[in-house]
Amino acid sequence: MTAELIAVGTELLLGNIANTDAQFLSEKLSAMGITVHHHTVVGDNPHRLAGALETARKRADIIITTGGLGPTYDDLTKQTICQTFGREMELHENILEEIRTWFRTKMGKEMPENNVQQAMLPVDCTVFDNPVGTAPGCAFEEDGVHVLMLPGPPFECRYMFENRAARYLEKLTAGVIVSHEIRIFGMGESSVEEALREPMTRLTNPTLAPYAKLNECMVRATAKAETREKAEEMLAPLVEQVRETLGDVVYGVDVDSLEEVASRLLRERGLTLSAAESCTGGLIAKRITDLPGASQVFRGGVVSYTNGVKAGVLGVPEELLERYGAVSEPVARAMAECCRRLCGSDLAVAVTGVAGPDRDDRGNEVGVVYIALAGEDGTICQKLSCGRGRGRNRVRSAAASSAFDMLRRWLLGLPV
Amino acid sequence: MTAELIAVGTELLLGNIANTDAQFLSEKLSAMGITVHHHTVVGDNPHRLAGALETARKRADIIITTGGLGPTYDDLTKQTICQTFGREMELHENILEEIRTWFRTKMGKEMPENNVQQAMLPVDCTVFDNPVGTAPGCAFEEDGVHVLMLPGPPFECRYMFENRAARYLEKLTAGVIVSHEIRIFGMGESSVEEALREPMTRLTNPTLAPYAKLNECMVRATAKAETREKAEEMLAPLVEQVRETLGDVVYGVDVDSLEEVASRLLRERGLTLSAAESCTGGLIAKRITDLPGASQVFRGGVVSYTNGVKAGVLGVPEELLERYGAVSEPVARAMAECCRRLCGSDLAVAVTGVAGPDRDDRGNEVGVVYIALAGEDGTICQKLSCGRGRGRNRVRSAAASSAFDMLRRWLLGLPV
Repeated sequence: MTAELIAVGTELLLGNIANTDAQFLSEKLSAMGITVHHHTVVGDNPHRLAGALETARKRADIIITTGGLGPTYDDLTKQTICQTFGREMELHENILEEIRTWFRTKMGKEMPENNVQQAMLPVDCTVFDNPVGTAPGCAFEEDGVHVLMLPGPPFECRYMFENRAARYLEKLTAGVIVSHEIRIFGMGESSVEEALREPMTRLTNPTLAPYAKLNECMVRATAKAETREKAEEMLAPLVEQVRETLGDVVYGVDVDSLEEVASRLLRERGLTLSAAESCTGGLIAKRITDLPGASQVFRGGVVSYTNGVKAGVLGVPEELLERYGAVSEPVARAMAECCRRLCGSDLAVAVTGVAGPDRDDRGNEVGVVYIALAGEDGTICQKLSCGRGRGRNRVRSAAASSAFDMLRRWLLGLPV
Repeated sequence: MTAELIAVGTELLLGNIANTDAQFLSEKLSAMGITVHHHTVVGDNPHRLAGALETARKRADIIITTGGLGPTYDDLTKQTICQTFGREMELHENILEEIRTWFRTKMGKEMPENNVQQAMLPVDCTVFDNPVGTAPGCAFEEDGVHVLMLPGPPFECRYMFENRAARYLEKLTAGVIVSHEIRIFGMGESSVEEALREPMTRLTNPTLAPYAKLNECMVRATAKAETREKAEEMLAPLVEQVRETLGDVVYGVDVDSLEEVASRLLRERGLTLSAAESCTGGLIAKRITDLPGASQVFRGGVVSYTNGVKAGVLGVPEELLERYGAVSEPVARAMAECCRRLCGSDLAVAVTGVAGPDRDDRGNEVGVVYIALAGEDGTICQKLSCGRGRGRNRVRSAAASSAFDMLRRWLLGLPV
């Protein structure tokens, strides 16, 4: 089956926001085995939206619109779709009641009368109620084409797709499609492809496909079957095969990030962490505290961006700084050990390196990074070359990811 | 004049990346007074690209494609455009030489023979050479429609637009279009619109338009004139009028961020900063060290995510923590003062608050944040409600922005 995505919103054509809904939906549809051939963006303009719909109904089995479901005069997606496909609209009383309740409980006020139009939906449609906002979505079929309408705000769009629209689409594809994401750090996309070329090219159901991500990559295993259980049965040995082939560079399946995995391992072992950061300048602390409940495993740390703070706050001996320079193994080790004592944590990670734009005064190239991990039984240290030639932000994010991966490997007893 | 953007790349339809080129170009075109009515995305498929081009040439004055200019077999943008518009291609020897030189100097190797096709361009076109990559772009006119081809990688696309394509388009629009971005923190988009409604609705050249950004907003002033000087002359009094109307919530014109402005003020005054962060967990340090040369103004700081680190590393008296709780004015003040002494900086900023997802154990709601700023002559402190109801990440980013704005205001002698 093929799908076409139509985003509606003048703010997209003005460049105020990027069309991240299209990225999200494309990735999900692709994982469901539905092929996307076109994305289209039009403004809040019924004439151009109607044109896009007429074009799409001729070439796609599924049309998914995002945006234009709000309560104001320029939200015209439902009306335009109904006109194009010759459907009437009707008031859905239960949806109206849900919107009224949402205003009362979430906004602490009565629903403005404008919002009544959000409860007007095509006759004979599948309603997607919206517990995370006011705009309900819906779907119907006309002449063999399925039209799905989702809200534009990314959080609502994602929620409604995952919890409502995905089930509607699963029925169309006659079976259940299940996929798992195998996350990989420390092995490039091309090496992953090479290692898995045989199953990737041979398999048709389940399938394996590689994706590049920032600083890392991912393999998605997808299976289609009559039931979820059968799909899972098909996937289990495949995921296991990928794990065996790639080895310990696989850091998780269906997880969000390295820091999520490292935090979970710390929690499981009842250990706490602190961080001494030079070139990453707070990024490691920021990433681990992005996760709710971080205080269970993360005590805090020191951003020792200058030598004065490395010596004066962390207590790194001045002699080490003078003799080896700030970007060196002895200083990385001392930073980690001092930070561990200072913060009273079980473990401490330390990063010192050259983020750029220029090499440091001792001639270390941009991207040279030392990462140390101190624990009760000693300290280990790695020298890495991170994100060379890809700019300051890439060096910093690669260094932070490497620190979380080093921590993960150490906690699992893997070679670091 | 109207423009249509066509992005070419299967990776967009698979959801591997978002179409950020379209966002960037839309914003730039809008600032030049060129209206964008459609974005289209197709895969690396000549048939569907040709279809998109045929549709676009009927309804737009300018077609801008992004992507598909690489050296591999699936990079078919130039060939497909030339077929659609009936143009031959020819080898541009000087461009070939540039690509060869790029490989030698930047990659340290000889150019693979594949890349010869990157020097094949339509006859009689304007060439956009590419000093930041290997794919040149180009533009031509056919039947009154201008077709511009830009590379897909965002960095190259941006560079080529700003340094090559923008000039081509300026000629079409018969005159020079200049715009300035007036950045605003601490006033919502709707209040800004209300305050500037009169000039926004009255003016046609120059124009004023508001934009919402994360935690802040922006007004863009745009003028069209025969020369850049004349456009600047038209803009100067308008920018001044916006500054006067909005007052000191305007934090800069044509700047990137609050931290950039705060850093520049610190540098001008020869002052250094440190940061003690609780709920922001390193985000303030991360944002200021995103800027190259940060070490001139930022010494470092302490991420005191737990009370143990607030007391043990910063030296906040335990008694304050017990009596008032971590999220309180006395603790924020103590954090700033301790951090300033500890890091030996002229100024220190401290943030403590409730990022969520839940209120703290003293009943402080999610979003309650105390920000303190300590200097030689004393400490000031503000209590704010940041990003309520918009999730943990929004609370954190709003709190960090507020801290930078407080610093900016203090450095300028404005009321805080």
